Amino acid sequence: MMNKRSGKSTVIFENPPVILSGASIVGKKEGEGPLKDLFDLIEEDAMLGMNTWEEAESTFQKKAAEKALEKACLAKKDIQYIFSGDLLGQLIATSFGLMDLEIPLVGIYGACSTMGEALALGSMVLDGGFADNILALTSSHFASAEKQFRFPLDYGNQRPLSASWTITGSGGLILGKGDQKSKNKPVVTSATIGKIVDLGIKDSMNMGACMAPAACDTIYQNLVDLGRQPEDYDKIITGDLGYVGQEILIKLLKDKGYDITSQHTDCGIEIFDRETQDTHSGGSGCGCSAVTLAAYILPKLSSGAWKRVLFVPTGALLSTVSFNEGQSVPGIAHGVVLESRKQL
Amino acid sequence: MMNKRSGKSTVIFENPPVILSGASIVGKKEGEGPLKDLFDLIEEDAMLGMNTWEEAESTFQKKAAEKALEKACLAKKDIQYIFSGDLLGQLIATSFGLMDLEIPLVGIYGACSTMGEALALGSMVLDGGFADNILALTSSHFASAEKQFRFPLDYGNQRPLSASWTITGSGGLILGKGDQKSKNKPVVTSATIGKIVDLGIKDSMNMGACMAPAACDTIYQNLVDLGRQPEDYDKIITGDLGYVGQEILIKLLKDKGYDITSQHTDCGIEIFDRETQDTHSGGSGCGCSAVTLAAYILPKLSSGAWKRVLFVPTGALLSTVSFNEGQSVPGIAHGVVLESRKQL
Repeated sequence: MMNKRSGKSTVIFENPPVILSGASIVGKKEGEGPLKDLFDLIEEDAMLGMNTWEEAESTFQKKAAEKALEKACLAKKDIQYIFSGDLLGQLIATSFGLMDLEIPLVGIYGACSTMGEALALGSMVLDGGFADNILALTSSHFASAEKQFRFPLDYGNQRPLSASWTITGSGGLILGKGDQKSKNKPVVTSATIGKIVDLGIKDSMNMGACMAPAACDTIYQNLVDLGRQPEDYDKIITGDLGYVGQEILIKLLKDKGYDITSQHTDCGIEIFDRETQDTHSGGSGCGCSAVTLAAYILPKLSSGAWKRVLFVPTGALLSTVSFNEGQSVPGIAHGVVLESRKQL
Repeated sequence: MMNKRSGKSTVIFENPPVILSGASIVGKKEGEGPLKDLFDLIEEDAMLGMNTWEEAESTFQKKAAEKALEKACLAKKDIQYIFSGDLLGQLIATSFGLMDLEIPLVGIYGACSTMGEALALGSMVLDGGFADNILALTSSHFASAEKQFRFPLDYGNQRPLSASWTITGSGGLILGKGDQKSKNKPVVTSATIGKIVDLGIKDSMNMGACMAPAACDTIYQNLVDLGRQPEDYDKIITGDLGYVGQEILIKLLKDKGYDITSQHTDCGIEIFDRETQDTHSGGSGCGCSAVTLAAYILPKLSSGAWKRVLFVPTGALLSTVSFNEGQSVPGIAHGVVLESRKQL
């Protein structure tokens, strides 16, 4: 058995899984932002014709899964496992969204880090020889998330400037062994599963601050484990730290000897326009990093504009119960290294 | 890359992960049941000195993790990943229970099938060469689960006879490559990840009926994929179908041509005494299959009394939101094959 570990918590793939397709379906607000021309589908109706927000979120997942299959020219039967999760209690968006696919399901939860977890696990399962193709998918929905975590929308509560805006949408990627036809598609070359980091921050309206220490920990570990410097990456892209979290992350990593100012961006920063969209610290939610990856990051890797990206979705591990009981908001972040194979 | 798939959704491990230890910590009621002499620790105080039920459940997880490490003679640093989850929204029992371990965490959710999911994934990651040792762990707590899913305890609601009793406790297993010292310990030889099965049942007080079709599907798939008959297993053990679900499962599998009457038992049936403990259909919860595995099933495999067991924890994929919105209660089940290596 080959040991594919590098350093403390990074693994290197012997046969890097190929990203065969990426699909992104978003709501109206996301479709008015800077990435509007890149999404596969923009839904004007956030309910998608369903009766509840939760069913709507499930439908976003289903549509993203179908679009990812279509773009990869694969059928349901070609996929051995789905790795998916969402923010709702007991992952109901996932369960009700994906059951019709009748594909074995690995339900995962890493809050908004879920897409990183899905890609890391899916890649291990592929490289381990246990599947030919897997689907990694997540979703979030502004309305179902506000209902789950904060206030009913009708209450019209004010949001502090440190708050982020849960994006409505779902993103899915199909990873596989690949073949001659997919030889120019990007690959996942390594992964760093994160640990929980809790600096005791209790402000659930400042998720960026809660998650930045975990992002710092995972990026630091990735750089150390692989013996890399920030400039070995074209981009280091976190999930949904937003403007507030970005500032903290850059400072924390400087304290550890790494300056990622030139490389860093954040999906929550890229997805909304700060000046015109009134989303304060930026976008957030499981879906934020997933749709930004599928719509914005993958094409840059496919075209060869970026050669190597460290993609690090970030999650805040709270529930209303833990928050109301006075607990802190710990963070977690899972990183995957994505590389272009395009010959320029 | 070797293909380790067998049939539609079963994988076979080239180097079967060794079960280095199993730990079980339970509450008072579980400690009065038929397995009372087998648990590692019985806690008289269901609060474990904490302020909330959720913190108590977290503490059960922490204690089970520590006990599993102790029994395997391993330190925290020897474990590359924890695969863990629980029933509470956003997995707070897991997040707050395991953060002090500072081990990379793969948060998973399969409702009460979580222990099966943890063992299947953990085994793939080990056999894939990505870790030397992993910890698979889950928990449940009667009081935190009643609060999450049903009524406040003080309300003293009546329970129908089809209802099960969420067990209080946590079970953890350490899986690893093993060495000469562990050559008699049981191994995980294959795994069958389940898909969601929904027959439209909506009665959340009859989880056994909701989950039995999923258990049937996974057991059927395992038998077909591996070309086995029920008698190729000494035992086929589901998680928490209880008496009501057991009857349905046996009937459903008979309809598909397999009679598992002689092999089948259920952790929820084994953990409580039907006559004296007033738990109606039996025990349930993520913790139910985990502690029964650690305390009851593993020793039978270690001693060689059982040579081969199909362990199939079962989960009901509902939340209070989905239930109150009138959705059905879909089920899922993940199976792992555990084999003895004891030379009799």
